[in-house]
Amino acid sequence: MNIGIVGLGLMGGSLAKAVKKYGIAKKIYGYARSEKSKKEILELNLVDELVDIKRLKEECDLIVLAIPVDTIISILPEFLDIKDSTTIMDLGSTKEFIVKNIPKEIRKNFIAAHPMTGTEKSGPKASMDNLYEGKTVVLCDLEENTELHKNRAIKIFQDIGMRIVFMNSHIHDVHACYMSHLPHAISYSLANTVMNHEDPKSIIALAAGGFKDMSRIAKSSPDMWTDIFKQNRENLLKGIDLFEVHMKNVREMVENEEYEKLAKWMKKANTLHEIL
Amino acid sequence: MNIGIVGLGLMGGSLAKAVKKYGIAKKIYGYARSEKSKKEILELNLVDELVDIKRLKEECDLIVLAIPVDTIISILPEFLDIKDSTTIMDLGSTKEFIVKNIPKEIRKNFIAAHPMTGTEKSGPKASMDNLYEGKTVVLCDLEENTELHKNRAIKIFQDIGMRIVFMNSHIHDVHACYMSHLPHAISYSLANTVMNHEDPKSIIALAAGGFKDMSRIAKSSPDMWTDIFKQNRENLLKGIDLFEVHMKNVREMVENEEYEKLAKWMKKANTLHEIL
Repeated sequence: MNIGIVGLGLMGGSLAKAVKKYGIAKKIYGYARSEKSKKEILELNLVDELVDIKRLKEECDLIVLAIPVDTIISILPEFLDIKDSTTIMDLGSTKEFIVKNIPKEIRKNFIAAHPMTGTEKSGPKASMDNLYEGKTVVLCDLEENTELHKNRAIKIFQDIGMRIVFMNSHIHDVHACYMSHLPHAISYSLANTVMNHEDPKSIIALAAGGFKDMSRIAKSSPDMWTDIFKQNRENLLKGIDLFEVHMKNVREMVENEEYEKLAKWMKKANTLHEIL
Repeated sequence: MNIGIVGLGLMGGSLAKAVKKYGIAKKIYGYARSEKSKKEILELNLVDELVDIKRLKEECDLIVLAIPVDTIISILPEFLDIKDSTTIMDLGSTKEFIVKNIPKEIRKNFIAAHPMTGTEKSGPKASMDNLYEGKTVVLCDLEENTELHKNRAIKIFQDIGMRIVFMNSHIHDVHACYMSHLPHAISYSLANTVMNHEDPKSIIALAAGGFKDMSRIAKSSPDMWTDIFKQNRENLLKGIDLFEVHMKNVREMVENEEYEKLAKWMKKANTLHEIL
């Protein structure tokens, strides 16, 4: 099988490395737009060959779109003429909007996937050969795909060591909001709270594990995350509102010195870790 | 030097291990109240001997209070008759209220310290011999201490590999609020947002690094953190209000689809990582 990867940043580059590590592809083709990315991809030896979209469609059995979610939508028209036997797949963090926008010509070929993994880093240099190992990938609305494409997608994720979860794309977006999009909005807000203080440097001199963990994802790419917030707008607004209820709660309990109630509320939060 | 540690949970137990690792004390004495803790402390061999407060005061050159911040206040009357040459020190996360409540009889002996380190775990079994290594400790209002006690405190933290920062206790509490107390309030709120959802289990099945990091400290002890919120109440309320401005901002930008403004706001958050 030949695999083509569009976008060789953190997600695409790591996929290329994993595919190479496990000897899954005969040949790995890559497509990148910027000259800077192309140079880095070649230096890192991420793919066997960088090609244009035309060659990608000719050579590959599986084409993976590892690009920001809005770019996934805008690039789709270029893939309307793929072969029946070519699988095309995206790795975007939102799924419902993408699924709704898959052109009917390639609906059967198109696998909507979301590997629940990543780091705050981006670009080819951020890629790691073990990013996917032991992590979960969500495959959405597979009943719209033919067996060939479905099985090919399942096999590749199994081969790189992932746990597979099947889910409706709408439900996926609700869950991904709580597990990833809302936490990003919160982390960006916390980082901005500190950066807008009159003296962020001496405050951050005291940073320990708690703040480091809570602000790590505030380093994530604004372009990528603006697109995600846009595509999962409704769920994110709902998520923020529910989170805000709890922020108001804790503020009120502290303000009113209701410490027993506060401890009880914290205990409820502790129960998360019976699951996680 | 003999060292006595009151409370041998995460902070006190880890201090005992570090002191032993670096051969700093001739003998380490411990004091614990609950039978469960005593049993664990002895099983883990954290101290040379468990004693009562009276023996602790007789035997130790340095007594460390590694207990919740409200308990620090309530236990202080038991230490009014320590020798002039005995150093007493607390490791609490808040400093201004504690400093204000140090009885004048022992003000010169009392070192207000806050090691900026920890994990979400608590109890003797959570202790680690490298919890303090390479981390920062804040020493507050040292101008109130005599040289003997000041130098003893500085030396022990240097000996266990810590970076020392000197700070006014009021400023400390503001900074600690942003770096630790506010992040805890946020993490508890995020955990509660998810735990109050109708189906937390299937949502959390998709948890990856982002959510795991953001919810880790929501596992922290409610008793300990209720006390901290209580003692740093004013700063925490102010911190929550400033954070809430940003949560309102992000909600508004998403609601109004102001995506360029949103990307700019995220970029501002990114700048945190030029410092951290």
